[in-house]
Amino acid sequence: MGSAPLIVASNRGPLSIVAVDDGDDEVRRGGGGLVSGMQAALSAAPDAVWICAALNDRERATARRCTSGRLSEVPAVADALAGDFDVRLLPIDALTFRQAYNGIANSTLWFVLHMLYEPARTPVFDQTWRRQWAGYVRYNRAFAEAIVAEAAHGATVMVQDYHLLLAPRMLRELRPDVRIGHFTHTPWVPSEYFRMLPGDVVHDLLDGLLAAHLVGFHTARWARLFADCCADLLGERPGPGLSVFPLSTDADEMQQRGAERDVNRALRGLRDTVGERRVIGRVDRTELSKNVLRGLLAYRELLRTRPEWHDRVVHVVYNYPSREDLPEYREYTAAVERLARDIDDEFGTDDWTPLVLEIADDYPASLAALRSSDVVFVNSVRDGMNLVVLEGIVLSEHDPAVVLSRDAGAADTLGDDALLVNPFDVSQTAAALHEALAMPADERIARAQRLRKKAVALPPVPWFQAQLDALADVSR
Amino acid sequence: MGSAPLIVASNRGPLSIVAVDDGDDEVRRGGGGLVSGMQAALSAAPDAVWICAALNDRERATARRCTSGRLSEVPAVADALAGDFDVRLLPIDALTFRQAYNGIANSTLWFVLHMLYEPARTPVFDQTWRRQWAGYVRYNRAFAEAIVAEAAHGATVMVQDYHLLLAPRMLRELRPDVRIGHFTHTPWVPSEYFRMLPGDVVHDLLDGLLAAHLVGFHTARWARLFADCCADLLGERPGPGLSVFPLSTDADEMQQRGAERDVNRALRGLRDTVGERRVIGRVDRTELSKNVLRGLLAYRELLRTRPEWHDRVVHVVYNYPSREDLPEYREYTAAVERLARDIDDEFGTDDWTPLVLEIADDYPASLAALRSSDVVFVNSVRDGMNLVVLEGIVLSEHDPAVVLSRDAGAADTLGDDALLVNPFDVSQTAAALHEALAMPADERIARAQRLRKKAVALPPVPWFQAQLDALADVSR
Repeated sequence: MGSAPLIVASNRGPLSIVAVDDGDDEVRRGGGGLVSGMQAALSAAPDAVWICAALNDRERATARRCTSGRLSEVPAVADALAGDFDVRLLPIDALTFRQAYNGIANSTLWFVLHMLYEPARTPVFDQTWRRQWAGYVRYNRAFAEAIVAEAAHGATVMVQDYHLLLAPRMLRELRPDVRIGHFTHTPWVPSEYFRMLPGDVVHDLLDGLLAAHLVGFHTARWARLFADCCADLLGERPGPGLSVFPLSTDADEMQQRGAERDVNRALRGLRDTVGERRVIGRVDRTELSKNVLRGLLAYRELLRTRPEWHDRVVHVVYNYPSREDLPEYREYTAAVERLARDIDDEFGTDDWTPLVLEIADDYPASLAALRSSDVVFVNSVRDGMNLVVLEGIVLSEHDPAVVLSRDAGAADTLGDDALLVNPFDVSQTAAALHEALAMPADERIARAQRLRKKAVALPPVPWFQAQLDALADVSR
Repeated sequence: MGSAPLIVASNRGPLSIVAVDDGDDEVRRGGGGLVSGMQAALSAAPDAVWICAALNDRERATARRCTSGRLSEVPAVADALAGDFDVRLLPIDALTFRQAYNGIANSTLWFVLHMLYEPARTPVFDQTWRRQWAGYVRYNRAFAEAIVAEAAHGATVMVQDYHLLLAPRMLRELRPDVRIGHFTHTPWVPSEYFRMLPGDVVHDLLDGLLAAHLVGFHTARWARLFADCCADLLGERPGPGLSVFPLSTDADEMQQRGAERDVNRALRGLRDTVGERRVIGRVDRTELSKNVLRGLLAYRELLRTRPEWHDRVVHVVYNYPSREDLPEYREYTAAVERLARDIDDEFGTDDWTPLVLEIADDYPASLAALRSSDVVFVNSVRDGMNLVVLEGIVLSEHDPAVVLSRDAGAADTLGDDALLVNPFDVSQTAAALHEALAMPADERIARAQRLRKKAVALPPVPWFQAQLDALADVSR
């Protein structure tokens, strides 16, 4: 039995360790709203621990050197943590990590939960897949055992996301005294889709999650679909612990970061291209579910059907590379680049660049894109929440109109103040882009005021605190 | 107002017209259980009419020559019909037909209703698709208007399948006096999937079907999913006309056809290859939803994991070509052929051909495959009913074991007397093939007896009559 009263468990932790020139470790503390929300709660609880996976050989080596298992043994890490809380980095072997993370979490569970399969060909659950599944089980067990080692009697454990769907059941059996919360950051799907997974896997995943005292989702829609899966496939109804916590963004944090010098510099560069034209801005990972391809098709249909926008609008698309190790992602990005060239060939002039597409890891440039947006555009085929649209609303300097997929969790947060679209309906999306560009100023400003309120309704710190409060309630 | 008391409306009719050498029309009367079931009811009702689409230029030309619109004007057709009933062939123009049949029915509705899309890339509902949709509306209107012209006051109209989902509403508005039945031969899907279609299209399709007094499906599962779609997407619950009629096969008709000389000849040819070995038999169209690829993967996994079956089993796969005009179908068939070669390369010997794959339109050979099957194998990813598995049970001379996808409607008919599998779970399917091959004779015989009863529970003639009776009940 350990001493931690509060534990967060997630695949990726709040810091990363990279090798620097002299061979030493450099520790980088992660940013982003979600991490800072959890850090606030961890810092407030003495002796709290964040448990996460070592993501590469460097991190595994560092983790193995810590005899207590805790990273604060490493001076550079201790400096970075500044005593706020400790981090336990799990040195899961490289094969198990690859099986669990690439094979199951990102290639199976992500695809199931975003309905991304092409059922004539994928998924295929065969012997090779079974070996990956065994890796996912071992990965979850490693987390459960580390939590057991760290948790004080009656501790609170907050398990994150689809990487760790089995851990709650494992943990509950090993340590009935701890209070377990789990939060799923992805969408959920109908039982007719979820049951594509092998029967025993369906059982273990649903049963794994149901073992948590608190099961959190971003929206009532995902929670309801999860409850339907439990009823249809497990014959059980989730108890009162099934809850909805719609994460939003922290306006102060975003605006502060968005006003820094590197963003200002990127914004000046963008203005050189855009001039006085309107900007339809989007920022995504290069991720199949983000639907950039249909977004570009909609923009092309806008330019084809509404020539009045020629030379008066620029579509600015920032994509930061993600999952480039998966061939279908590389092929998708190549298709995006081809379509972007086609659009430029069809409409571009000496004076007007109709489309700016950047595929690069350039955070300041992406914030500049959002600051300059007249229309914030998100059309994911399915998305747990999508924080970018909320960040865009907060950062834009132009009282932006919002064109948003009805199948992003954020649609539930923003409602009809955004222009909601069916992400598969390119013509409807093109019409919504026109409506957004042509919206009378007074209507746009009134909507933007309401959108800004909704975009910050439950920022990371109160979002995480609300889960801790709810967990204390349901496990009382 | 017309004179017909009973009308069947379907895309494909009970006869086809082809050009023969001397330039004359030759009329071929169609076969198959479904057609014969409807023909029986039509023949019993004086002045009944079957309304269908002209499928090619030849048929369009013939249809245009009939001043009454009825094919009995053509002597060769009148001979073929022998006064049983009349046929009205709609000379829908070639573009409209292509838009409705290829563009919407087979490339959109078929894909939606079998959950075949790859959502990162398909579907794309853009301007081009909208033109196809307009063709589907015109095609349905042509049927509705022809029905109006033919139907006597208070006539009964039986509309068939996903080609004609809009016609019931159109017809009901034009002719409130007629009693409308509709039968969907495909599966249905969860509302979360169906709503990928554009919003107005979702509305028109569901509302179109709800206008029928009787809405029939093969299984309670498809009917329930349709009802959920209506509730979730239309805010309406279907009335008492939503009904289930699980079509089965006609044992006498099948056995008679299966005993003809051409089948006997094919069977002798097959026995030369197979010898005394066990046969795992399957017969399908080259259709994405039939899942031949994963079937071959399962057979390969069987041979890899259970070497005791080497040289003791042959997998016989008959595929008749279908939808070869769609590139994804051609690519899929090519992948099937590649995998078949791989299996032959991995396991074949001078004496043993582990796999017989025939991609050809050879009905006698396919019946021979079913007659010789020790295991009847169907693993569709989704299938309205699947009559082949029922025909295989009736035709096999070996008290066959059945390995069947739980996602084919026939699974509801056959239940646990078949070995039901998750069609995506190749390992489970391989294990079921082993279980089927290794099943003790007494168990296999007992199951086969029960399966034969279930396979003929509601053959085409009573199946269609049951719908007519139910329609009379609900519209009273």
